[in-house]
Amino acid sequence: MTNDFDTRPGRAGPLCLRDMGAFHVGGQAVRLQGQPATRAVLAAGGEPVLLDPNGSYWVGQMYAQYFLPQAPAQSTPLQLWHGGGLTGACWETTPDGRPGWLHYFVRRGWDTYLCDAAERGRAGYAPRELWGAPLSQTAEAVFARFRLGPSLDGVALADAAQQAFPEGQFPAEAFEALARQLVPRWAHTDAVILGAYEALLERVAPSVVVCHSQGGMFGLTMAQRRPDRVRAVVALEPAAVPPPSAQDEACAVPTLIILGDRIEGDARWPAMRKRIEQFARRHACVEILSLPDLGMRGNSHMLMMDRNHLDIADLVHGWLARALKD
Amino acid sequence: MTNDFDTRPGRAGPLCLRDMGAFHVGGQAVRLQGQPATRAVLAAGGEPVLLDPNGSYWVGQMYAQYFLPQAPAQSTPLQLWHGGGLTGACWETTPDGRPGWLHYFVRRGWDTYLCDAAERGRAGYAPRELWGAPLSQTAEAVFARFRLGPSLDGVALADAAQQAFPEGQFPAEAFEALARQLVPRWAHTDAVILGAYEALLERVAPSVVVCHSQGGMFGLTMAQRRPDRVRAVVALEPAAVPPPSAQDEACAVPTLIILGDRIEGDARWPAMRKRIEQFARRHACVEILSLPDLGMRGNSHMLMMDRNHLDIADLVHGWLARALKD
Repeated sequence: MTNDFDTRPGRAGPLCLRDMGAFHVGGQAVRLQGQPATRAVLAAGGEPVLLDPNGSYWVGQMYAQYFLPQAPAQSTPLQLWHGGGLTGACWETTPDGRPGWLHYFVRRGWDTYLCDAAERGRAGYAPRELWGAPLSQTAEAVFARFRLGPSLDGVALADAAQQAFPEGQFPAEAFEALARQLVPRWAHTDAVILGAYEALLERVAPSVVVCHSQGGMFGLTMAQRRPDRVRAVVALEPAAVPPPSAQDEACAVPTLIILGDRIEGDARWPAMRKRIEQFARRHACVEILSLPDLGMRGNSHMLMMDRNHLDIADLVHGWLARALKD
Repeated sequence: MTNDFDTRPGRAGPLCLRDMGAFHVGGQAVRLQGQPATRAVLAAGGEPVLLDPNGSYWVGQMYAQYFLPQAPAQSTPLQLWHGGGLTGACWETTPDGRPGWLHYFVRRGWDTYLCDAAERGRAGYAPRELWGAPLSQTAEAVFARFRLGPSLDGVALADAAQQAFPEGQFPAEAFEALARQLVPRWAHTDAVILGAYEALLERVAPSVVVCHSQGGMFGLTMAQRRPDRVRAVVALEPAAVPPPSAQDEACAVPTLIILGDRIEGDARWPAMRKRIEQFARRHACVEILSLPDLGMRGNSHMLMMDRNHLDIADLVHGWLARALKD
């Protein structure tokens, strides 16, 4: 299967938008009291500033950037929700410089919202006094956990391709560019992040949510919590699924879960897939698409960056067209 | 003076781009060793992950998002460099929902690069083991320091307009939306940030730099360091200026510094203005534009968000057209 982004009808030529813009949404004002003040020069050669941490902060907001095509071909907005340790940048230009899923869905006529979840990217994050310090993941851990290869095994990031799975679809020669995209994260902010996504869903018209990894869990959760605001979910390798609940089978939101290759040999993904399969059995509206079962081999955890990312986007676009028609 | 963004020639109708995209640039790989490992569940219901902080990180990179108009009217790219505690979002939709300077310059035909400096936004930031904890600024401090009014004086963020200067141009009724844009910052990362900006300037064609506050200092510094890559600088209320040096008078890059209103009554800005005036006296290519001297009253530190932001953008666009012609 080949997919040439620039030559297919409707995807070549200029990208015309009827509007674009950005906003922050969700979160709340929080007051800090009783903390010590410090003095700092915030720009070399500037005037010293008294930094008194006591006062108000807006905390828990998220950021959304919207791209609205001049001639929308879809009546439902589409939101892109990234995974853990990442930002909305993961849906833009791929690490090796190809147009990403943002471009694909805008060119396909979707009103597209590129999101930075609460705690990262342009969303910002709370003062250390409120959230403590974040966790950072090493490039080595990410290389193995995203199933780009068995292990970086001490090679330089620029040489990661030497360690990649031979038939892998991830452009491992550009792994360094993926390492530049990684951002710190917290392990205790799920409720805050979900709260901001709910505020976003309330602000935008009922939407399709295309989500990945940690964001997959948020998308599946919001489909259960707000079926009035979520029209469909496409979850790329969700890192978790909602637990069994009284809402099982009461399944309002068409959901597609997409899985890549090499799950069998992974340390964590066989258990994850088992939970995803149990989740799908509990919910009649949930469908699992395992790419290797379609003959698409070599996909990593970063499906939207893989070399065949537009073939996968075509599958998503086609599935959504059918799901929204029903 | 009035300025209606949507009805002037060339600025109404769809926004057509020949391309858009994003990349990270600059920074370096850094290895951590000898730190303790921890175990954490990174998605509720997910598989526990061993978090070993020892390994490689990419540190000090920045992020740039580009919007290239279908019919460029300028041959020089334009880069937007934000201020401290902010991200590229400050150039997008204003807090009260008007199209921002990003829209303005793209519609005026500039190839525009919307940047998140190293350490914030989609650029990400280094693990705490390397940089320590960042500083956060309170909404109250920002309200006074950005010269929106004398003091928030305990009113809720949503009621900030009550405390704003009566003739102020900042849309203080939307102060809450500005508070959502604030992000933590460090006080010791200037060299890292400058290094990434230099890498950006090397990657993009020689550019105009439109910069603000802390970013103003970076723009003025890069004009001195890389006159081969900076074609002109427009610095909105730079928070500092480069110190006197042997390069004084050897002035290759046309530079415009714009100052808003109410500097006289401020705690820090009279001293800043004095340094800016000394800087301009040392460099024949530096021009200062004080908006009150033009009869434009009430501008805050956030010139690109003020109600008359498009009038100021027109001044910048006109000055750049003349400066690049010379």
